[in-house]
Amino acid sequence: MIAPVEYLGNKIKIVDQTQLPGKLVFVTFRSYTEVVDAIKALKVRGAPAVGVAAAYGIALGAQDIKASNKAEFLSQLDKILQAFAASRPTAVNLFAAIDRMKTAASTADFATIKQSLINEAKAIHADEEAATEHLSHIGAELIQDGYIILTHCNAGPLATAGYGTALGVIKAAAEQGKKIEVIATETRPLLQGARLTAWELMQENIPVTLITDSMAGYFISRGKVSCVLLGADRIAANGDTANKIGSYTLAVLAKENGIPFYVAAPTSTIDLSLKSGAEIPIEERNPEEVTHVAGIRLAPKGVKAANPAFDVTPHQYITAIITEKGIARKPYANSLKRVIIEE
Amino acid sequence: MIAPVEYLGNKIKIVDQTQLPGKLVFVTFRSYTEVVDAIKALKVRGAPAVGVAAAYGIALGAQDIKASNKAEFLSQLDKILQAFAASRPTAVNLFAAIDRMKTAASTADFATIKQSLINEAKAIHADEEAATEHLSHIGAELIQDGYIILTHCNAGPLATAGYGTALGVIKAAAEQGKKIEVIATETRPLLQGARLTAWELMQENIPVTLITDSMAGYFISRGKVSCVLLGADRIAANGDTANKIGSYTLAVLAKENGIPFYVAAPTSTIDLSLKSGAEIPIEERNPEEVTHVAGIRLAPKGVKAANPAFDVTPHQYITAIITEKGIARKPYANSLKRVIIEE
Repeated sequence: MIAPVEYLGNKIKIVDQTQLPGKLVFVTFRSYTEVVDAIKALKVRGAPAVGVAAAYGIALGAQDIKASNKAEFLSQLDKILQAFAASRPTAVNLFAAIDRMKTAASTADFATIKQSLINEAKAIHADEEAATEHLSHIGAELIQDGYIILTHCNAGPLATAGYGTALGVIKAAAEQGKKIEVIATETRPLLQGARLTAWELMQENIPVTLITDSMAGYFISRGKVSCVLLGADRIAANGDTANKIGSYTLAVLAKENGIPFYVAAPTSTIDLSLKSGAEIPIEERNPEEVTHVAGIRLAPKGVKAANPAFDVTPHQYITAIITEKGIARKPYANSLKRVIIEE
Repeated sequence: MIAPVEYLGNKIKIVDQTQLPGKLVFVTFRSYTEVVDAIKALKVRGAPAVGVAAAYGIALGAQDIKASNKAEFLSQLDKILQAFAASRPTAVNLFAAIDRMKTAASTADFATIKQSLINEAKAIHADEEAATEHLSHIGAELIQDGYIILTHCNAGPLATAGYGTALGVIKAAAEQGKKIEVIATETRPLLQGARLTAWELMQENIPVTLITDSMAGYFISRGKVSCVLLGADRIAANGDTANKIGSYTLAVLAKENGIPFYVAAPTSTIDLSLKSGAEIPIEERNPEEVTHVAGIRLAPKGVKAANPAFDVTPHQYITAIITEKGIARKPYANSLKRVIIEE
């Protein structure tokens, strides 16, 4: 079992997800700015994993703060928190982690504040590990023997620094002895499905068939898919869910063909402060991710390209949202609140 | 204006579409087997263009036949016809062209049979050119000023050895002075949208934005697309339409969001011998087209991949089918027959 994100006292070690599956490369960061850059470059990616990496990055940055009192310390810490907040806009786990680190700092004694921040980052990591493992076992109950599950992007251990969300549910169902298969979309532009999901499933000996994103409708319409199951980057109070670009399309295809569309996410992904998905900021990334693959130009020079990294699936398309506190169903405005409050 | 397919007496010259947009390379074939191989390798692709290339390839092969009577000639010609029939299964224009060449041979005098086949191939080409230009002008009436048109794969001059079908309609609307924009999907696995559609539209100075296939739903659901417009590889008698993999998904997205979904195709693409799309054979291509891009492996070694090259859009999703004989609308079982009979 690989540790996708690890805190080693004065440094953070991560798996560079951009190099997989060709090479399994670990990179080590000794400054928080390197962690910010790694998040921006998607070396560490996946909503829960980004939250964990940011928490450790904040703890790492905090160790280097030189301050003579707590107010001074908090003011310097704030600069670090802001750098992480500006790294990626869509996944809320990042902001949830930043908030927890900020609260931990503000409630800590000045004498032990640096250690408190390390402890809080470790607690965030442990909480995500526990949450993803727990939600995976809860979600596995929805997966029937013989299911062919279509998933999008990557929501496995790499993405969560834990057990996985969508892939966690799949792993847990397989561990229960259910005979299941997975259809994984390659997930252009950055091919997290081809590079990471296929790789993680092969490591687990779970049968997987790779397809292009455009093939999902073909297999769904021909009755070859039992359900769609994916992770989430941010879930609004009404259940609208931001996830990797292309998720909305899969939801429409699932509805049109009468199969369930499941979202698996820890409660740290739920953002009750947003009424609906319309308020979720969508990251627009570099168009070169669309015009190039693996550094090779595919499209004509000078062509305009768009690159929204996420889309929002309206709540009415979602059959169930699987969390570590239970499975939420429509109407989500009630069920998500209940799930969070049970905390 | 480039000639995508040209007959030059004892040879055929084509644009190698696999090299675009990086290089504009013309390749010359002196034997029919080279033409068969070029069709299989998608050096010449697009349903109407494949029909034209096959017709010329058959004429070319016929010139080398040594026979002392017509029966002997036809028997040798049959081997050539079979080689082309086995090159690609889905697009019907190929089979329509083969049928026309077969009929031309069987009705020709033995003394002039070789010239008759050249003439028939040229007639097929001229017919496709006239049909695509005519349908483009008919279809342009559906395109309103200010439209943002989403298209998939490539249905331009390269694909048709003529004016284009979907892109022909777009060109004709632009020539009418309508201010239009195009959103082109890259069209994995072989990226005909990124490589060919973007390139052809840039040549015509028509504004184009390139997106990944997975982004279509994002733009359609946010009201950024006025209509979906694409070509076809085979249309069954009931209107079910085979086209590049991913077309069905766009049709579902169009229906869900209340925008028109238009198919543009010459009547040579309509196959009244098939009751429905269930009878259309779907080509399954090499999985390496999915696991690799531009020769670079993207997915883990040994991963299983699927590669259906087409899907079928059921007739109920299609707002109109634009042909050179007029615009067919539901119920297609009547309107398509009427269009063909008006021939």
